[in-house]
Formats: sequence, structure tokens, C-alpha cells
Amino acid sequence: MSFTLNQLAQRFSGRIAGDGERQIEGLAPLDGAGPRQLAFLANPKYLTQVVSTRAAAVLITEDYFAKINSKAFCAFFIVPNPYATFARIAQYFAESVDKPPPAGVHPSAFIDPSARLAPSASIGPYTVIEANAVVGERARLDAHVFIGKGATVGEASHLYPHVTVYHGCTLGARVIAHAGAVIGSDGFGFAPDFGDENHPHDRSGEWVKIVQTGAVVIGDDVEIGANTTIDRGTMADTVIERSVKIDNLVQIAHNCRIGAYTVIAGCVGIAGSTTIGRHCMIGGAAGIIGHLILGDRVSVAAKSLVTKSLPKAGFYSSAFPAIPRSDWNRNATLMHKLDTLRARIKQLEATVFSA
Amino acid sequence: MSFTLNQLAQRFSGRIAGDGERQIEGLAPLDGAGPRQLAFLANPKYLTQVVSTRAAAVLITEDYFAKINSKAFCAFFIVPNPYATFARIAQYFAESVDKPPPAGVHPSAFIDPSARLAPSASIGPYTVIEANAVVGERARLDAHVFIGKGATVGEASHLYPHVTVYHGCTLGARVIAHAGAVIGSDGFGFAPDFGDENHPHDRSGEWVKIVQTGAVVIGDDVEIGANTTIDRGTMADTVIERSVKIDNLVQIAHNCRIGAYTVIAGCVGIAGSTTIGRHCMIGGAAGIIGHLILGDRVSVAAKSLVTKSLPKAGFYSSAFPAIPRSDWNRNATLMHKLDTLRARIKQLEATVFSA
Amino acid sequence: MSFTLNQLAQRFSGRIAGDGERQIEGLAPLDGAGPRQLAFLANPKYLTQVVSTRAAAVLITEDYFAKINSKAFCAFFIVPNPYATFARIAQYFAESVDKPPPAGVHPSAFIDPSARLAPSASIGPYTVIEANAVVGERARLDAHVFIGKGATVGEASHLYPHVTVYHGCTLGARVIAHAGAVIGSDGFGFAPDFGDENHPHDRSGEWVKIVQTGAVVIGDDVEIGANTTIDRGTMADTVIERSVKIDNLVQIAHNCRIGAYTVIAGCVGIAGSTTIGRHCMIGGAAGIIGHLILGDRVSVAAKSLVTKSLPKAGFYSSAFPAIPRSDWNRNATLMHKLDTLRARIKQLEATVFSA
Repeated sequence: MSFTLNQLAQRFSGRIAGDGERQIEGLAPLDGAGPRQLAFLANPKYLTQVVSTRAAAVLITEDYFAKINSKAFCAFFIVPNPYATFARIAQYFAESVDKPPPAGVHPSAFIDPSARLAPSASIGPYTVIEANAVVGERARLDAHVFIGKGATVGEASHLYPHVTVYHGCTLGARVIAHAGAVIGSDGFGFAPDFGDENHPHDRSGEWVKIVQTGAVVIGDDVEIGANTTIDRGTMADTVIERSVKIDNLVQIAHNCRIGAYTVIAGCVGIAGSTTIGRHCMIGGAAGIIGHLILGDRVSVAAKSLVTKSLPKAGFYSSAFPAIPRSDWNRNATLMHKLDTLRARIKQLEATVFSA
Repeated sequence: MSFTLNQLAQRFSGRIAGDGERQIEGLAPLDGAGPRQLAFLANPKYLTQVVSTRAAAVLITEDYFAKINSKAFCAFFIVPNPYATFARIAQYFAESVDKPPPAGVHPSAFIDPSARLAPSASIGPYTVIEANAVVGERARLDAHVFIGKGATVGEASHLYPHVTVYHGCTLGARVIAHAGAVIGSDGFGFAPDFGDENHPHDRSGEWVKIVQTGAVVIGDDVEIGANTTIDRGTMADTVIERSVKIDNLVQIAHNCRIGAYTVIAGCVGIAGSTTIGRHCMIGGAAGIIGHLILGDRVSVAAKSLVTKSLPKAGFYSSAFPAIPRSDWNRNATLMHKLDTLRARIKQLEATVFSA
Repeated sequence: MSFTLNQLAQRFSGRIAGDGERQIEGLAPLDGAGPRQLAFLANPKYLTQVVSTRAAAVLITEDYFAKINSKAFCAFFIVPNPYATFARIAQYFAESVDKPPPAGVHPSAFIDPSARLAPSASIGPYTVIEANAVVGERARLDAHVFIGKGATVGEASHLYPHVTVYHGCTLGARVIAHAGAVIGSDGFGFAPDFGDENHPHDRSGEWVKIVQTGAVVIGDDVEIGANTTIDRGTMADTVIERSVKIDNLVQIAHNCRIGAYTVIAGCVGIAGSTTIGRHCMIGGAAGIIGHLILGDRVSVAAKSLVTKSLPKAGFYSSAFPAIPRSDWNRNATLMHKLDTLRARIKQLEATVFSA
């Protein structure tokens, strides 16, 4: 697969400086690119690499083009956002190579007669689609996918093998769900019924399950990582707004709402009924307890724990970096004695400053 | 689906004050309920909402009924535990609407001839049940479930799609396992065999797998969340006692024992051979290292790490709340200097108090 | 199944002291073994148990044999590494009892005609193998496994139910992947394209997906836990070197490289492009941020967060042990005031020592 620079510039709205007839066969980083590859400059610290690159052309902004043009040998592909255009061209090349499977239903799939499948959808082997479910145009369901009763998968969505969508859940257009993702499992709620509180051991107790009658609603362009779980709501729905990106092994509990464009890294856990704003960034393995509200553009550092609402945009943290264990342990022990250290300082102050 | 208050009161052992012939069509919170819905009061801080609610009736205790009765317009449904009764009535409504699938084996399921399935069990498409496995009455196995050789699923259990039960594991009655849960995978154990310790790089080393010949035994009324994993024991079994509730993405390692009624929130990890008592509450993303013993009624805060046995009931924590990053980092750095701060305090004390 | 001590000694290269004709039917710990079982001594603190054990024989080193021989009643099976030999004999017994499934393809499996399966491979029900995939001799794929286009599974590997191997990924020989493991899902990468940075709210933003054209390459003798996820690389591959052992619910992001013999406990998350050396030990629920380099023989404590490269071998930590909540909270609050405590110490020093 090969395109000229001019062809790419026309398709991706850029301006070419230099030889527009150069053939581009793929993409690569500045320092690894060969003479038939396209590279990009997004970070000024790599500006000198533009001078030495062997790439056929470099995606660049007007500003950096003006600075480096006279010193470089490559052609330039000038766009407002080189990294985003790089990503779009990389998608274009990938699609040219990796054709999606043909439309139609694999003979081994089990589709309830009342389900409505768009003719251009592609349904893989052993996939199960239950009663009254809806699958949109050009949607792609790989092998072993499960779509429960009355669930909806929007157009051009791609569900990888072993994805489970429980009954009544809704996925928008162009949603990607990676293998093993679970959408719509029961929220975790139980009413205790252990008898007389004064004699709690007197009878066998019981947790009464709170039925989870809400669903999960997922907006357009959401991506959901492998083995990530999103629980259905108790009475209202759990909502993932458009263009939210969720990494692998993330847990989102019942009745959460995640605002548009928010990005959630791997291993994050978000407890029930928490609302997260738009354009937030939640670092890997962070935790957020239930019933909180995070405003727009809140960022949380990896492995931090959010225990209070954070209405204001900003960067929040509560994580410690690892250091040699003996140093850590010596100091960690003192952490439990901060109150006595403070008391000793107070007493010193009383003595010294009253003197 | 609709019931009168009197009908519900008879079925769920309550007393009605007010018009017992009112029709109830569903349940809702106090502030959102309409005139054909039933609400509940479990927390006294919502007492004033009972006065203003539009609900047909409110589930309430005798005590709160006595306090609020004269001021309210709704009927009352008086029970000892309004929240638990609310949960039971919600289940009743949900079951009336969402009929379970019919008994029988889907033609696409693969059942080994030596497996014993109760006639009232329901087995979904593409489910696999291996030799000598047993499935109890009214058990429901959804699509793509895997039951290994000699495993047992108790009566009225419900296994959602893509649940894997390894060979020889036992699930009690009314167990719920959500999509992707894995029960009985190998415990994580290896014997190092890297040759001469003084020349560890001299030969290619090897981890020798410890075969995991125990199983997992799960009691009645246990619920297991989506993509949660419970490893089989090394020689003895991993045991989950009755009515334990486990959320999504939890890891329980080999040879653990989890006591009855204990609740484990999402993303928790429990290392091997740890025993947890009854009625414990393990907060989200907490970690518990191996070979510990936690007593009954131990609660662990979210994201905390338990490194020592905790025989005494109580609430334990080691987690920090996130604060603005610059504040956090300024102080986190000092954490590594607590020992020098203490030394400086000591020296001050020596000077000041010896004077 | 039963073997004499002499038979086992011949197969596993040991020397017998005592009656070599004793029959061994199984293995057990020193304190639980019966007269037809074999136990082992790996830790000198159990030396006295060797005197009292009822085991037929004890695996032991020459050194400990010399110390304890005269006091004990059992036979001895003398080897350089008793624990590793114990593990190997336990495997031998397990294999004698639990025969692997016969070679061949289950009639319900779906195999693309262009896939190449070794005749001795065993393929379970509903397993899907896509075009040009390769499955080696004696490989065992259980039910519901998915092998994507052009992926390779090495000889004698064992993939448990619901394992997903994405297109183009490679597994070496004797790889074990437990149920629900996902190998080769997309790395988590997006280019922001939200328009004018000065007016970020003016238009609907967009995250442009970075296509992930690398794969995952897994070496020989790797074990991967249940529901663990390993992402494919962006342009280059994610690499897991030989004999790496990975527990359940671990997330390994795109373009990581994990060095040979490294062990990763459950619930660990490793962010993108991080390289980990050989013989490392990563404790449960530890986190490692992206683009770091950890040297050989680095150990990280459970729940710690690595934020900087750690080139030097050693043990690193940043985790606090849980203590009673009231004690914890009283001191945790002071953590946020360490800078003012230090300032107070400084002022005291200025006053006291300048006096």
C-alpha cells in the first residue's frame, strides 16, 4: 500500500512543502524512519532530529516548519496538529492492510429471531445475540461475544472476543470493547438483615440483594479495555459519555457517570454513584470512593485515592514513590508517630519561646 | 405487574397503616416516587422527605412510624428492617417481569454424557459441561459457561456468560457468578531451581511449577463479581464460606478462607493462605498479604494494605486522601526525611531540656 | 498410582538412604504426611519435624541429612534442591492421574482452513482458530479459546477456557495461560485533537486512536494468570521473556519488556514502554509507571509505586501497613503538615543553637 504525499495531503487537509510526489508506504518515528516513511514532530525537543531524519517527509506545524525548513532535507506535511494527523494517517494505512471481515452472520452464531441486525454488520463464530437486541450498520462482533436481551450496539462498533453486554445496555456508535470486557453486570448492593443488633451472633445473618434494574449507557466513540467491568445502575443508569477512553482492568461501579473525553488508565477502580467531569485524566491504579463529584479537567495521579469531591480543575495526588526498602521502613514507622513528634516540637516551643 | 399494599404486607410480613388497597407497581426513592410506588425510610436524616413524598406508601420501622405518622399523607408499611424488605420486594417485582429462561439444554451446548444435570436446570448456548460435573435444580448457566470435570454447581445458582469453573470445584446453592469470573485457576506457586546461589548467572534458571491439586469450595448464597478470580488451593482447598459477597475484579489467591457474610469490594487482592473472619468488610482496592489471620468483624479501608494479622474486630487503614499535587509532593518528600527530623528534635531537646 | 522410592530416585536423580522399596502414593507436608507419602525439608526451622514425621521418606539436602539422619525414623531422598524436586515429583503424580485430553479437534471447534495445527494438538469445543494461525505439537487449547489471524501457539502450551490471543501474537513452548487471559489487546494510546488550546471548550474535542500495529511476543515456559491482560505494542512488540511467571489480574501495557525469570504477583499494573530486568520480583498490586527501566534482581514490595527507573538490584517499597483507623487518621493528617513541622524545627534550631 502506497500513497503520494500529495494524495495524503488532500485527504488529510495539509499543505506540502517539497516534493509532493514522494511515495509513502508507512509511518515511523523521526529517528527510525526510512526514505518511504512519514514521521512527525510534536515535541520541540526533537527538532534537531528533523534535520537528520531519513524520512521522506515530516508532519509539522507552520511554526516549527518556519524554524527548521532551511536546515532540513525532507519534505514537509504542514498541519495544525501533527500528532493527531499522524494518528489518522496510521489508521488509514492500517485499514488498507487489515480488511474487516465480510458482512454477515457466521453460521455458528446464535441469533434470536427477534434481534435486529443491520445487513452490513459482521457477526463472528459462536456469538450469541438474544431477543430484541439491536446491532447497527457495519458493527463488528467477533467470536464468542454475548449480547443480552434488548441491548443495543451502535453502528461501526467493534466488540472483540468474549465481550459480554448484559440485557438492556446501550452502546453508541464506533464503540470499541476489547476482549473480556463486561458491560452491565450487577452493581454491588446488599441490604443487611442480621436481626437484633445487640445480639448480632444470635442468628445466621443475611445480605439481601438489591436488584439492579438500571442499565449501562455508553456514548459514541468510547473505547473500553480488555477485562474492564462496568456495572449496571441500581435504579438509574450508569453512564459513560462520548469519547471516554478506558484502559484494561478498570472497574466502574453502579450509577457512576463519566464525563465526555475523560481518560481512565489501567487498574483504576471507581466506586458507586460517583460523577466524574469532562476532560479528566485518571492515572493508573487510582481509586475513587463512592458518591463523589469530580469537576471538569481534574487529573488524579497514579495509585492515588480520592476520598472527597474535587470540584476544581487541577492535579491531585496521594501516592509515594518507592525507595530502597530499609530507608522506607525506617521512615514509615515514624509516620505512625507524627503526633508525638508534633507534641515534642510544641513542648520545645513552649520552653524556648516563653523563655 | 401490580399488587395491593395488603397483598405485599401479607407476603413480606408487615403491618399496613392507611389504605391497604392502594396499588403498588414498583419501587422508588422517597424523593422520586410517584403515587403507585413504594418508598422506604432507612436513615433518619430523610425523615422530612416522608412528609413530602408522593409515594403511595413508605416502608418504615415502628419507631419512626410513631414519630412521623401524624404529619404524613402516605400509607405506611411497617416492618423491622425497611431497607431489607425494600430489597426483597424489589426482587419480587423484578422476578415478575424478568422470567428466567425455560428449563432445558440449548441444542448448541456441549454436555459430556457423564455429567448429571437436574431436569429443571437451564443451560445456555455454547456452554460446555465436562465429564462427571453436576448441575443442581433450577440452576441457570448462561451462554459460553465452562464447567470442568467433576465440578458441582448447586441448586438455583446463576452463572452469567463466560464464567469458568475449573475441574473439581464446588459451588453451593444460589451462588451468583457474574460474567468472566474464574473459579479454580491454578494458585501461583513455583519452586526456584537456579543452581549454585554463588553463581546465579552461570546457568539458565528455572521456576518449577507447584501443581495445584486442591480445589475451590464456595458456600451457599455467595455472589462473585465480573472478572473476579479465585485460585484453587495447592494441596488443601480455597474456601469461600456462605453469604460472602465479592465485587468485580477481585483476586483471591490459593488456600485462602473467607468467613461467612464477609463483603469484599472491587479490585481487592488477597494473597495466598490468608484467613479472613466472618462479617468482615474489605474496602475497594485494599490488599492483604499472604499467611495472615483476620478476626471476625475486621474492616479495612479502601486502598489500605494489611501486612500483619489483625485478630481484633475494628476498622483499619493505611490510605492517604489525594490533595493538590504540589502540596502533596512538597510534603511527600519530607516523608523520606522523618528520621532526620526526629534526630533534630532529639538534639533540640537535649540542648533545651538539659539547660 | 504408586512408585517405590528407588524408582523415584532413579527418575529424579536422587540418592536414597533407608528402605528404597517403600511405596510412595503421594506428597504431603512434613506434619501431615502419612506412611505412604513423601515430604520435603526446605527450611531449617522445620528440622525437628523431620524427627517426628510419619512420612515414608523426606526429600532433603546432603547437609541436613548429615545433621538429622541419626535421630529420624523415615527414609531419606537426598537431592540438591528438595523443594524443586518435590515440585517435579508432584507434577509427575498429577500427570499420572489427570490424563490430558486426546489429540484432535473437537467437532464443534471452528478452524480456518489456512490454520496449521500439529496433529498431536488438542482443540476443545467452540474454540476458534483464525486464518494462518499455527498451533504446535501437544498444545492444548481448552473450550472457548480464541486464536486470531496469524497468531502462533508453541508446542505443549496449555490455554485454558476463554483465553483470547489477538492476531499476530506469538506464544513460545510450554506457555500456560489461565482462563480469561487476554494477549494482544490494543495498547492505550490516543492523540488529542481538541482545537485551539486557548479556547478548549469551543468545539467538541476528539481523541484520535493510535493504531497498535505491534504484537505480543511471549517466550517459552511463561505462565499467565486468569484474567490477566497484556497489550500489543504501538509499532514495536510487547515482549515477555522466557520463564516469566505472571499471576491473575495483572495489566502489562504496550511496549513493555519483562526480563526472563521475573515473577509478577496478582493485581500489578505496569504502564507503557517500561522495561523490567531478569529475576525481578514484583509484589502484589504494585504499580510501575511508564517509560522506566528496572535492572535485574529488583524486588518491589506489595502495593508500592515505582515512579523512577531503578537500575540497581535491591528491594524497594513505598507501602504503609494498615493500623487502627483512628491512629492512622490522626497521623495521616499531619502528613500534610510536614513542611510546617520542619519549619518549626528550623526556627527552634535558629533560636536554640544561635543562643
